[in-house]
Amino acid sequence: MERVSVEEFRTSGLGVVRPVADTERVPLAEAVGRVAAEDVVASVPLPSFRRSAVDGYALRAADAAQALRVVGKITAGHPAPRALKPGEAYAITTGAPVPDGADAVTLVEETEQTGDWVRTRERVEPGLHVSPVGEDFRLGQPLVRRDRVLTSVDVAALASQGRETVAVWRRPRVAIVSTGDELRPLGTTLGPGEVYDVNGAALEAMVRAAGCEPIRLGTWPDRYEVVREGMAAAAARTDWDVMVTSGGTGASVPLFQGVDVKTLHDLVPAVLAEVGRLIHHGVRMIPGRPTALGLLDDRPVFALPGWPYAVLIHFEIMVLPALRRMAHLPPARRPALPARLAAPVSGTEGFTRIIQVRLDQESAGGLTAEPLLPPPPPSASRVMTQMLEADGYIVLEGPVRWEKGQPVTVWVDPARMREGWIQ
Amino acid sequence: MERVSVEEFRTSGLGVVRPVADTERVPLAEAVGRVAAEDVVASVPLPSFRRSAVDGYALRAADAAQALRVVGKITAGHPAPRALKPGEAYAITTGAPVPDGADAVTLVEETEQTGDWVRTRERVEPGLHVSPVGEDFRLGQPLVRRDRVLTSVDVAALASQGRETVAVWRRPRVAIVSTGDELRPLGTTLGPGEVYDVNGAALEAMVRAAGCEPIRLGTWPDRYEVVREGMAAAAARTDWDVMVTSGGTGASVPLFQGVDVKTLHDLVPAVLAEVGRLIHHGVRMIPGRPTALGLLDDRPVFALPGWPYAVLIHFEIMVLPALRRMAHLPPARRPALPARLAAPVSGTEGFTRIIQVRLDQESAGGLTAEPLLPPPPPSASRVMTQMLEADGYIVLEGPVRWEKGQPVTVWVDPARMREGWIQ
Repeated sequence: MERVSVEEFRTSGLGVVRPVADTERVPLAEAVGRVAAEDVVASVPLPSFRRSAVDGYALRAADAAQALRVVGKITAGHPAPRALKPGEAYAITTGAPVPDGADAVTLVEETEQTGDWVRTRERVEPGLHVSPVGEDFRLGQPLVRRDRVLTSVDVAALASQGRETVAVWRRPRVAIVSTGDELRPLGTTLGPGEVYDVNGAALEAMVRAAGCEPIRLGTWPDRYEVVREGMAAAAARTDWDVMVTSGGTGASVPLFQGVDVKTLHDLVPAVLAEVGRLIHHGVRMIPGRPTALGLLDDRPVFALPGWPYAVLIHFEIMVLPALRRMAHLPPARRPALPARLAAPVSGTEGFTRIIQVRLDQESAGGLTAEPLLPPPPPSASRVMTQMLEADGYIVLEGPVRWEKGQPVTVWVDPARMREGWIQ
Repeated sequence: MERVSVEEFRTSGLGVVRPVADTERVPLAEAVGRVAAEDVVASVPLPSFRRSAVDGYALRAADAAQALRVVGKITAGHPAPRALKPGEAYAITTGAPVPDGADAVTLVEETEQTGDWVRTRERVEPGLHVSPVGEDFRLGQPLVRRDRVLTSVDVAALASQGRETVAVWRRPRVAIVSTGDELRPLGTTLGPGEVYDVNGAALEAMVRAAGCEPIRLGTWPDRYEVVREGMAAAAARTDWDVMVTSGGTGASVPLFQGVDVKTLHDLVPAVLAEVGRLIHHGVRMIPGRPTALGLLDDRPVFALPGWPYAVLIHFEIMVLPALRRMAHLPPARRPALPARLAAPVSGTEGFTRIIQVRLDQESAGGLTAEPLLPPPPPSASRVMTQMLEADGYIVLEGPVRWEKGQPVTVWVDPARMREGWIQ
């Protein structure tokens, strides 16, 4: 199978996912960051009564020139016991209902009260300092539209309607599978040649952070029967929307002579092709190792490599856009900062290359981006260390060669953003 | 009490909060976004065995010129049954342990296997395609430091150590109180002059979104005895770290003649001064209405106004920085986008003014920022509607007057960021 470009892979991924169609109701306190699945219009106008905008005296504008008898005090939540009559005023506080018979409020600072009588210096027109019913939200005004990412402002608007909950799209459920004979669960002891299941933990954390629900389907050893049975069992389950696997994607053709497909070490794409459909296998990306895209029971499967560095990058670049589309979320991208390279870097013809960088503030105020490159072969790579040290990454398309001082765009990890850096 | 600048208020708030000192352990899957409360060094080197970086044949570099007898296949998780002897090779897959006796791996693509014999075309030096023990994480290497905001990379690093959990700082617990006789709980029916408790819902949602735990302490009516008793009862509770109230901050002096402090409608700062300490009351900010800062049982209290628009803005500008410091999180700011004003705006001498704006993409590729200004008095304001329509806000310090076309920085709500906008 031909390796495809990052863009083609990503587009295919976006093409095979469907936005989640199920909804659920969540309490307003948990609604921030969720995506509305209903249109909400105002059923309670805001304000729902003629409301005083200030502390002062409610009166008839026509009476404002004369001394008025103060017949009571109206505070928020306590309407006047009776309507205001000509020649009368009510003391009133901000947010309190303006009594029937009054058409204006004069500011307390502009008045003088002597005993039961008050006079105002203010020029009072009808409507002064009175918020009419529905001034902010008129009845039927659209407040929140379907597919809006909810913020605290939306929560406030929904609360103004007395709503305790809001309908949101259910979080996409992401099945997570790790494959590999060498994998051991966290919290156990490693035997010779064994490693902990780093990818399972990282994928679970990334899926959650993406606003999706992780469904761990366990670890599959590198055996044809097991992977095939695992896929078949997964296909029969209805509790996931998309699957992400790691490991077992290395070889798209048998690497060892005389070995048939059933004894392949890297089984995932081959089995996916048998029990479902394989759409892509291999992306022209560095870091690479083949990543695959397929369908199982018509649901998308992203098969990532076993290398944790590639899993972290491929998830963000190729899986996350699809998950966000499923979640009805707009495309996300990291904050971008301009910087100058501290050392030269090179791309590769036909490949998208991601290079981790560490940012440093220059004395001049700009930022320098130090590429964190793996040491050259024959050594392999110190890539996890570099990812821990990185503040972000740069992207090189094709065979570019950038020298020290080259202006670049750094895609910064939001958690690593520092205060002085200009966004 | 003198109104203080936004900067002074914010600095005071940061000064009276203390970073949370308690820690808790969370599963790795829930660690993203939490703040590490421990230093973690590598206790398991990565790799923990000499690992093949490729699919190929493990061999002695010294033997590479000759045909070698293939004595078996080593796959990930399955160490060789015995050491390699001179003249031998093991087929080996990526991630598998290089057997004792071998010092290099040659790429399968560079070899030719005939029956049990293999030859390589590669120039093989000792160490070729072998990742030595500890190449990525050496024993004792610092992986995660205290106060680091954890990302999926940290989760991967911790998982590589077999850790199931990580110690993080406990989330700050934020007591939330709404005050006002007019407030009704969500889900109930409004009587005359009543409104729903918008601020309680909005504060709970904002506190959660800030990575803190909301503790609802209910609603206090505007009665001196109730507010005083509520404060005293809150002071006796140990389950909150910081308190945020809304409402009841309007007047710092009695507005109505002949009214003593106990019958004040706006009681919160006055009672706070009695039972605790009042540090500030009033901020030179628009939107305003007095916001106060005080201490209750030596714990910080942010007393916000009752106006939801001001609550939303004041929380973000003045409370959030303090909560983030308590949570050991670095200061956060919204993404900033350059835009040009679509209409003139004016600031006010001595005040920080926040104006909501809606962003539009110009044909030329730039952004225009349309100020969403409340209609002028005598009407009050359509401010919730404007906040719903806004993409972000601009900040005006002092009596500036900006004309149409003025370049401005728009602080964009991340949830409203659209794909085409350049960051």
